Amino acid sequence: MGEESLKQHIRFMSRALELAALGKGKTSPNPMVGAVVVRDDVIIGEGYHMKAGTPHAEVHALRAAGDLAKGSTLYVTLEPCCHYGKTPPCTEAIIKAGIQKVVIATCDPNPLVAGKGIRSLKEAGIEVQVGIMEEEAQRLNEAFFKYIRTGLPYVVLKVAMSLDGKIATCSGDSKWITGEKARLKVQHLRAESDAVMVGIGTVLADDPLLTVRLPDESKRPLRVIVDSSLHLPVDSRLVQTAGEAPVVVAAVPGKYQKDKKLLLEKRGVEVLDMPGEDDMVSIEELLQELGRRGVMTLLLEGGATLNASALQADIVDKFVFFLSPLIIGGKNAPGAFGGSGFDTLDKALRLESLKIERVGEDFLISGYPAGRRVIDTCSRVL
Amino acid sequence: MGEESLKQHIRFMSRALELAALGKGKTSPNPMVGAVVVRDDVIIGEGYHMKAGTPHAEVHALRAAGDLAKGSTLYVTLEPCCHYGKTPPCTEAIIKAGIQKVVIATCDPNPLVAGKGIRSLKEAGIEVQVGIMEEEAQRLNEAFFKYIRTGLPYVVLKVAMSLDGKIATCSGDSKWITGEKARLKVQHLRAESDAVMVGIGTVLADDPLLTVRLPDESKRPLRVIVDSSLHLPVDSRLVQTAGEAPVVVAAVPGKYQKDKKLLLEKRGVEVLDMPGEDDMVSIEELLQELGRRGVMTLLLEGGATLNASALQADIVDKFVFFLSPLIIGGKNAPGAFGGSGFDTLDKALRLESLKIERVGEDFLISGYPAGRRVIDTCSRVL
Repeated sequence: MGEESLKQHIRFMSRALELAALGKGKTSPNPMVGAVVVRDDVIIGEGYHMKAGTPHAEVHALRAAGDLAKGSTLYVTLEPCCHYGKTPPCTEAIIKAGIQKVVIATCDPNPLVAGKGIRSLKEAGIEVQVGIMEEEAQRLNEAFFKYIRTGLPYVVLKVAMSLDGKIATCSGDSKWITGEKARLKVQHLRAESDAVMVGIGTVLADDPLLTVRLPDESKRPLRVIVDSSLHLPVDSRLVQTAGEAPVVVAAVPGKYQKDKKLLLEKRGVEVLDMPGEDDMVSIEELLQELGRRGVMTLLLEGGATLNASALQADIVDKFVFFLSPLIIGGKNAPGAFGGSGFDTLDKALRLESLKIERVGEDFLISGYPAGRRVIDTCSRVL
Repeated sequence: MGEESLKQHIRFMSRALELAALGKGKTSPNPMVGAVVVRDDVIIGEGYHMKAGTPHAEVHALRAAGDLAKGSTLYVTLEPCCHYGKTPPCTEAIIKAGIQKVVIATCDPNPLVAGKGIRSLKEAGIEVQVGIMEEEAQRLNEAFFKYIRTGLPYVVLKVAMSLDGKIATCSGDSKWITGEKARLKVQHLRAESDAVMVGIGTVLADDPLLTVRLPDESKRPLRVIVDSSLHLPVDSRLVQTAGEAPVVVAAVPGKYQKDKKLLLEKRGVEVLDMPGEDDMVSIEELLQELGRRGVMTLLLEGGATLNASALQADIVDKFVFFLSPLIIGGKNAPGAFGGSGFDTLDKALRLESLKIERVGEDFLISGYPAGRRVIDTCSRVL
């Protein structure tokens, strides 16, 4: 491939990725997908997948291009589907439109169907090129890729803390460590998630709502409380709003009073019996159950004990830290991760692909457990 | 002032500040100063102060300009001196060179002499303009400005910690939390300081050398140990190298064995008797003593207990955090600041003017206690 044409490819695929990202938080359980139709180096049609159950990106882009699509090139961020789901296969629409060449960022992550869409395009005589901006494309849909491959939710752990890693003062004061813009960003993180999870300690300390409070946002992520002994207060804001957005409490049978379960269920709260380890809810089992329920992205919002369990169980796919420009100090002020921690540095969790940005007066640092996030190249499946 | 001439002023003053910074770590107890001579919008001479006792920046720049200096403009980052010190007054050299106009970033911080240099230039018929890039100029010499005004060292507190604010694991493992480049940067911080200070806890845990280990660097900052009961081991690397770079131990009389003092003194360590508060060395008194000894910049290198004392005593002028991409966790793993910390968020220390940069695989975040760092405008003294 010449340098010039690689540049062109990146230019058009970047646009397709931009379009795909417009569907953020709306497409679950489908991935975000964007597509552009290009003729003589000019974009003649654009589209993206807006919502599960509605037409795919390719269909929108082809419709926009109309008759001009014939003989042109289609850029799409994910391998087009070749099966009948809620909508007809995209490969058919592409073939019917007379597209000459299809440039694909990355294959379908489902190993059972990966490559089939590409094959049917090739069989129809269409030139296919795969792997342009593949890493970016997989990253955009990192939750979808994990979920499709493993059936487990993609776990994002979010902590709001001071520069010295404290999530509250020694007296428990935690409102608010970060500023308004950071807290607004957390609202968006919730809106992009299918479920939000906290430990009972956080509920007892903060009485949080865990809802999405954004104008023009109807997303109601499942609210999950890890609470082995069912300490969730009936008069908590979570229980009182159980009619507005679902609340699930994960508890360990034998560890709680049955009356409390009935009481909570009467208020519309679901009590989920989970196996326990050392009287604690097994977080791995809970993840599997949430996966079965279609939770593709899970946002962990702490506190120190749940964060420590998640760290211990090694279930976190992405860490998102909001660091405020405060120093709190104190041996007994809770840090982001309680428990016993890693006892030597070589066992400590190293993060990679770190990003940092300013959010109002705070910093947002995000990263991935080193060596965890595998970018599959299509060459492996083709 | 027209927009065009302000732009010119900033252009030339930026260059003068750049030149000044070349003296970093070399000029103590003098400030860093840079100067450029400009004629018809062209720089015809540059200079900076390289070392205490050697010619000042203005003299270098005027020499470089030679006869062309007559009728030209001099940009200088600090008010020229008008008194005889180790070198003759710069104002005389400026007048003698026939400079027509002097543009000054900021006045002399010493309230007893501020404005005198400017006055003598004006009396010689030279046009003087003050305040171009004043904040930048004061920031460059922030240690010097504080020291001249208060007689106290400028205190930089440095911590190397994990993303979650830990300076060691629960078992005490702390080597190394940050990477090589960050550790090299610490060497440079030491080289820019007149003294380095740690608590006895750090000595007992890490047996540090606290020396500057850089090629082509002869700086030997004073090594100060806060050790009220004189627990400093005679076989520590600090004591063993007391002949190579000075070691001072601040202790509280009555809290230690007199034999130990004699033993340490015999090895070349100075034992400094300081008043104590709650059996701890008074950190404020220690600062005053170091100030009297000419320590202009003091680098605090922890650990958790000394950092907490410094936070409590509110003596830190600048915080420098190296954040490594590690998560250590653990309720009992030491955080950057021990002690009791601030008990409510409104009392927590807020930092301002935060800067962040990547240093190898780590982040460097620096900031100043909010509202502390006062930039004096020259208008106040003129």
